[in-house]
Amino acid sequence: MEKPTILITMGDPSGVGPEIILKALKKEYIHEICRPVIVGSTFVMKQASKDFSMDFNFKVYDPENKTNSRKTIEIIESGKPIHAFSYSSPSLETGENVFSYIKDSIELCMKKKAQAIATAPISKTTLKNSNINFQGHTEILAHYSNTAEYAMMMYGKDLCVILVTIHIALKDVPLSITTEKIFNKIVLSDISLKQRFGIKNPRIAVCGLNPHAGEDSLFGDEEEKIIIPAVKKAQKIGINVSDPLPPDTLFFQAKNKKFDCVLSMYHDQGLIPFKLLHFEDGVNTTLGLPFPRTSVDHGTAYDIAGKNIANPKSMIEAIKLAAVQAANMKNFLQ
Amino acid sequence: MEKPTILITMGDPSGVGPEIILKALKKEYIHEICRPVIVGSTFVMKQASKDFSMDFNFKVYDPENKTNSRKTIEIIESGKPIHAFSYSSPSLETGENVFSYIKDSIELCMKKKAQAIATAPISKTTLKNSNINFQGHTEILAHYSNTAEYAMMMYGKDLCVILVTIHIALKDVPLSITTEKIFNKIVLSDISLKQRFGIKNPRIAVCGLNPHAGEDSLFGDEEEKIIIPAVKKAQKIGINVSDPLPPDTLFFQAKNKKFDCVLSMYHDQGLIPFKLLHFEDGVNTTLGLPFPRTSVDHGTAYDIAGKNIANPKSMIEAIKLAAVQAANMKNFLQ
Repeated sequence: MEKPTILITMGDPSGVGPEIILKALKKEYIHEICRPVIVGSTFVMKQASKDFSMDFNFKVYDPENKTNSRKTIEIIESGKPIHAFSYSSPSLETGENVFSYIKDSIELCMKKKAQAIATAPISKTTLKNSNINFQGHTEILAHYSNTAEYAMMMYGKDLCVILVTIHIALKDVPLSITTEKIFNKIVLSDISLKQRFGIKNPRIAVCGLNPHAGEDSLFGDEEEKIIIPAVKKAQKIGINVSDPLPPDTLFFQAKNKKFDCVLSMYHDQGLIPFKLLHFEDGVNTTLGLPFPRTSVDHGTAYDIAGKNIANPKSMIEAIKLAAVQAANMKNFLQ
Repeated sequence: MEKPTILITMGDPSGVGPEIILKALKKEYIHEICRPVIVGSTFVMKQASKDFSMDFNFKVYDPENKTNSRKTIEIIESGKPIHAFSYSSPSLETGENVFSYIKDSIELCMKKKAQAIATAPISKTTLKNSNINFQGHTEILAHYSNTAEYAMMMYGKDLCVILVTIHIALKDVPLSITTEKIFNKIVLSDISLKQRFGIKNPRIAVCGLNPHAGEDSLFGDEEEKIIIPAVKKAQKIGINVSDPLPPDTLFFQAKNKKFDCVLSMYHDQGLIPFKLLHFEDGVNTTLGLPFPRTSVDHGTAYDIAGKNIANPKSMIEAIKLAAVQAANMKNFLQ
């Protein structure tokens, strides 16, 4: 079987992106499961290879030429040419450049020239400084792939979490969850786990909003009014989804393989247990796009950029998960 | 040094209490660190010893006679005499009896005849059926020991959690946390960790309420308005307490020993990570009482009572933690 081509967007040159990409590409098994191609600046990657004492060569990506040595990294030049950069302090053009890496990668995936994208970190501030009106990666990806319904999944070998609400105040959570939103996320989780994770009959757990899932509306009735109707509707169409469960015991069960994925009502409900288990090796993946997309679970880390101390674990896992999803998707569609 | 006398309340005879107490008392090291004394029904304990194929003898507790064999368990008879009971189905008198075990134990601790209490599970429903108007153990303990300021701490070797709010709907949490409540819990945590856990300079972490602790009031301002004033006030009197931290990364740091205890704003914020790490061996301990009190971290488990399959881990840890706290308290007061 042909290995999937995974585009790795370089991210912010002043952050840890180039460093963790190179450290990841040192791993033999990455090359066994996919054909990794960097989308970014050849100048930056060459410089980083030197700065971090790696002996990589770089060459322009040629889809036809599949005879690559692992010491030679394929790259697609994107954005304005960079002739200088410094770690920790992004230049004014960074926003435009990182935006270009992402857009070019989306285009290649939409044209089926590549099978998935793994993204290195960018900073929301640099996007803003370049007047690029997207909150972050996910919004750019959704926009340029015409995707209306998408969700962020946090993936780790012990726990998989999807969120109904994300960056909003806790007091706004009870009013922001709706039966429709919850139902849509359940359906999206189900189809994604089947198509992209190769799970035939995914077992999805749904968190209650309140302690003990409300204990029969003793404290809070959002379970009865909002969550249960969504769950019932999903169960009716054959999805293997739980009733809203007490959040404090549910994650222990999920960790012990009783469920394939947990739908959380709010940011910390899902991310507290996720980061407790997967602080270093967690991967963020966007469900609902026409192609798999994964991302490291951390930011640009300007404070440690250039010091050769960045941990590549999350980047490695992100590339692996992109490759796994691309392979499963191919099988599913055949 | 004399070993502390730990009173173990028998809890509901129809639940797993008697079984897990006996299984715990099989452990040699329990007898090395304390003098355990059951407060409950001799009839029930004798029957349980037979039912679970243990060869314990029982004798009436005599504080003066310290020459005990470990096969002979000391017991203080309390409540109405029980002549029959069945596992899984509590009798009408259960509520009154378990109430009596607790009250008698409190009295002995208040008179300094014993140093701590470890409680086996009771059911809130049986208390209610006997018209005993207390929500549970903690309220009974606070009332009869004249304690105004108390808090539940969930204790495990990897994580220690104290809650600001407990059994209320999530939507009521933002309005229920106050600067005064948070300050009082910080002070109570600090003094308890010093007095009862032998920690000289306790490091207390405080959770933000909102994702990323509000990210400079970008989503939610309870950190600025409510939590930070409490923290500043506590820092001013010399307590080593953190500013409100992003909850999703904080628990990983706490698990890695950066903090001795985490103050959580609501039930699931603290109990999701706690139960993920300490589902089986977690202990509940009440801070603020004049004597240490610990409890198993589970209920009566009527569904498995009498089957000899109950896991005694939490009971063992509860007795150990009661003994440790009693010993530390003695040292502290000397």
